[in-house]
Amino acid sequence: MKQISKYLAIAASAILWTGQLSAQDFEPFNRTVKVNDYMEPAIPHPDQMKEAQAKLQALEKKTGKKPNILWVVVDDMGYGDPGSYGGGAALGAPTPHMDALARGGLRLTSCYSQQTCTPTRSAILTGRLPVRTGLTRPILAGDHLTKNPWEDEISLPTLLGEAGYQTLLVGKWHVGEAVGMRPHDVGFDEYYGFYPAQKEVTQRLDARRYPDLVLNEDRLRAFEAIGPDDHLQHGFKGGKTEKVMQIKTTDDMGRVDQVLTDFTVKRIKEMAKSDKPFFLEHCFMKVHCDNFDNPDYPGLSPAKYQYRNAIAEVDMHLGTIMKTLEEEGLLENTMVFFTSDNGPQMDAWPDAGYTPFRGAKGTTWEGGVRIPGIAYWKDMIKPERESDGLFDLMDLYGTALKVAGVSTDKLPNDRYYDFVDQTSFLLADEGESNREMVYFWWGNQFMSLRMKEYKAHVKVIIPTSTHMYIDMSTIQNVGLAPWLFNLYVDPKEELTMGHRRNAWLATVLGEAKKHEMTFKKFPPKNVGL
Amino acid sequence: MKQISKYLAIAASAILWTGQLSAQDFEPFNRTVKVNDYMEPAIPHPDQMKEAQAKLQALEKKTGKKPNILWVVVDDMGYGDPGSYGGGAALGAPTPHMDALARGGLRLTSCYSQQTCTPTRSAILTGRLPVRTGLTRPILAGDHLTKNPWEDEISLPTLLGEAGYQTLLVGKWHVGEAVGMRPHDVGFDEYYGFYPAQKEVTQRLDARRYPDLVLNEDRLRAFEAIGPDDHLQHGFKGGKTEKVMQIKTTDDMGRVDQVLTDFTVKRIKEMAKSDKPFFLEHCFMKVHCDNFDNPDYPGLSPAKYQYRNAIAEVDMHLGTIMKTLEEEGLLENTMVFFTSDNGPQMDAWPDAGYTPFRGAKGTTWEGGVRIPGIAYWKDMIKPERESDGLFDLMDLYGTALKVAGVSTDKLPNDRYYDFVDQTSFLLADEGESNREMVYFWWGNQFMSLRMKEYKAHVKVIIPTSTHMYIDMSTIQNVGLAPWLFNLYVDPKEELTMGHRRNAWLATVLGEAKKHEMTFKKFPPKNVGL
Repeated sequence: MKQISKYLAIAASAILWTGQLSAQDFEPFNRTVKVNDYMEPAIPHPDQMKEAQAKLQALEKKTGKKPNILWVVVDDMGYGDPGSYGGGAALGAPTPHMDALARGGLRLTSCYSQQTCTPTRSAILTGRLPVRTGLTRPILAGDHLTKNPWEDEISLPTLLGEAGYQTLLVGKWHVGEAVGMRPHDVGFDEYYGFYPAQKEVTQRLDARRYPDLVLNEDRLRAFEAIGPDDHLQHGFKGGKTEKVMQIKTTDDMGRVDQVLTDFTVKRIKEMAKSDKPFFLEHCFMKVHCDNFDNPDYPGLSPAKYQYRNAIAEVDMHLGTIMKTLEEEGLLENTMVFFTSDNGPQMDAWPDAGYTPFRGAKGTTWEGGVRIPGIAYWKDMIKPERESDGLFDLMDLYGTALKVAGVSTDKLPNDRYYDFVDQTSFLLADEGESNREMVYFWWGNQFMSLRMKEYKAHVKVIIPTSTHMYIDMSTIQNVGLAPWLFNLYVDPKEELTMGHRRNAWLATVLGEAKKHEMTFKKFPPKNVGL
Repeated sequence: MKQISKYLAIAASAILWTGQLSAQDFEPFNRTVKVNDYMEPAIPHPDQMKEAQAKLQALEKKTGKKPNILWVVVDDMGYGDPGSYGGGAALGAPTPHMDALARGGLRLTSCYSQQTCTPTRSAILTGRLPVRTGLTRPILAGDHLTKNPWEDEISLPTLLGEAGYQTLLVGKWHVGEAVGMRPHDVGFDEYYGFYPAQKEVTQRLDARRYPDLVLNEDRLRAFEAIGPDDHLQHGFKGGKTEKVMQIKTTDDMGRVDQVLTDFTVKRIKEMAKSDKPFFLEHCFMKVHCDNFDNPDYPGLSPAKYQYRNAIAEVDMHLGTIMKTLEEEGLLENTMVFFTSDNGPQMDAWPDAGYTPFRGAKGTTWEGGVRIPGIAYWKDMIKPERESDGLFDLMDLYGTALKVAGVSTDKLPNDRYYDFVDQTSFLLADEGESNREMVYFWWGNQFMSLRMKEYKAHVKVIIPTSTHMYIDMSTIQNVGLAPWLFNLYVDPKEELTMGHRRNAWLATVLGEAKKHEMTFKKFPPKNVGL
């Protein structure tokens, strides 16, 4: 009853707000309210939004400017790698700084990425599903795109820059290295990092792993003609780009995350003195395969394996970055979000992460898309919170806009936006998620949908071996009925209850249908890139 | 180098201590030292033992008596069910009291049980592997044993009773309901609980799950002639036993853990006034299948499923028990250990727990034997510790003896003891495990061995379906070489590196051989019960 009357109150305010929802004496299965036809509907939580806005206003009054925004993205880290997510010491690589961040803020247990790198990294900067932008698969060196998908997008750094933010991206990019697609071409004031992933840079240097490439001079030259770029690039809005250093040895690569962290620390110290707020996205190169020990910290983890050492090193650098915020007096005025871009890449095992779930990177099983997500903001996000509320990393887009005071009226209405503003979820002390559904795509194929604790698959990715969920997998249509899992009793997605739970299944599939309709109304411009 | 000199110091003191270890300039792979031929060798940690003993002496000086010992055992709870082990809110059943216990003490991430109930429950009370005692499989109603294995054993409550402890077991027993095998026959002063598991008691009442039994009167009578006992029993040393109540409905069973908790609370309050220290083992009936909601708290968890409600209820009762200790001023003088008796029983799914690992109850995969283990002792165990040091639940036997001041000289030398005294691991602020190996048996078959982060299987349990690891599984010999997993990079035991890692494999198998020799020297008396 308590919950029902709570919903009635919300419904009542929703009526006033949109005029679209009629009062009901039960909480409907889909609690979202549609505000317009080009934005993902959200669950209204007017009380918690009031609480969040009051906090933001009080802070701005105190600091006289908008808050800083810092995203820290680890590459290919599995859900289970941090200690606070079940790994850490249990995997021979304690993560004291990740765990401290989790203890000090909100630990999300149902935080979702896309299933690979480029899709996730583009989605969080566009607020839109990769299938809408065309950035549906990892852009590799040698890829020749017929069109630059970024031309059609309004990136978050662009909007934040217009709102007075200093914007920079440090570290891995991997969303296009052609002119027009680089971070400093798509809205960032400054870029300091590498375009591709670690293994792209180092394979020409690694005779132990790639002898057919490294020990065959003709092939090596042919490979180098393709790329990928192996320089640390320093770019500025307007196009100016400098090559800072070239990776000439695997040791060079082993040291790179220290170099990137040093740069972030330096910039944070400078920006601490600025009148402008900043938006900084720090993207570690580690722990994407192939990992090489930082020669200054060999065998950093008790496990000694390169992947575990890389986790320990990332954790150490995270500690340095957080310490810098603290020393510069920025903790109270900086919203921090720590996450990974997708699940572990299992074909590189044992240089690969750990997920307790089914599947891995490249699949839409939980193992591929459920990742750590920690929101930390001193005095703004209550410590020791944990929530299973749904969070899609795209929501960072809408949340950053809200925190920066940028109205979504700035966004055009000729395309569909998939983010949900989660500011109230993160900031209200008892905040609940504003998201009801998460949609999972593989390239241009719709695969599955999570709604509350249910997840329905219309297509599934089945490996040809029992272990490896990447590469040697095929996409298959489901049989009798979509596979429906209750993740509370079946977190490993092992036993479908689809055919027996018709009511929910029909409802969930009805939501998938509505999702499909958004593509009818707003056809993607760049399908098949 | 630091680690090496640390070991040299330990080795040096070990030489003084036993005269058996020669100094080495590296830490040997097997760090244990043999003290005699009838006890499991342990890793010597003289410094941390000194620290632990100093703490114990200071406490005894303050309180004037030996510390109380409280074990809380949940039935069939999976490794991943508590929030602090990756579950909780993520599974729709927050566990605030388990998590508070973990935060306040030492969270073990490599804590091991036997693979089923009776073996674990007997091992922790005898300090010996089930294959040595004959208590190798769940004793079911209708079982006719030719001999009472307890007759040959010296139980922990017997030893603690002789040392002045008041000893009681509350809740599930499941190690024999015949006269001579009941808790109050084998050393406990008092027993208040049920002999069998929940489903044994309730199946005759549950027409929905067992229509072929309940709706067929002849079969029902035949079943009742076999048993199992469906009474809450109240027994006293000497043999006096009263039937307190009979389970007449599934609602009765749903309420039972409240009844048991009330009893434990009552006794704790009484014993708080006593001069005698107590040893109390509280064994919940939940969360073993079949779970029935407590009618006073229907749908207690957000997930609403019976299993998840049961987890939430157990957590609530744990909170009540801990609060009682606090209110009675006993927290500082009571060593608390919270655990489960084995992994989740998957053939009852969705009335089953969650493990992130391979396998389930009834198997020697991590999913069957790796369980939550939390040691809590206010002001004696440093808060917020977590360790991957090996801990076998049998170690509770030796640790309880040490804490109670009972010398192991009291134990006979005509049989082998498998426990390791872990007092110094638990009590020293930076304590490390004293155990180097954990051995896994299935009945009378030796299956596998964990040493450090390596686990070698000589036999494996493979299910005939891909999901269910109980009942429909077979025991198979390994092929080319024993399967060797590094649990730091392969916690799900998916890819053996056995044949490529001969050095470790040979060493680990050498340890298995030594283990086998203990059976040659001390043949089990009760094989094949």
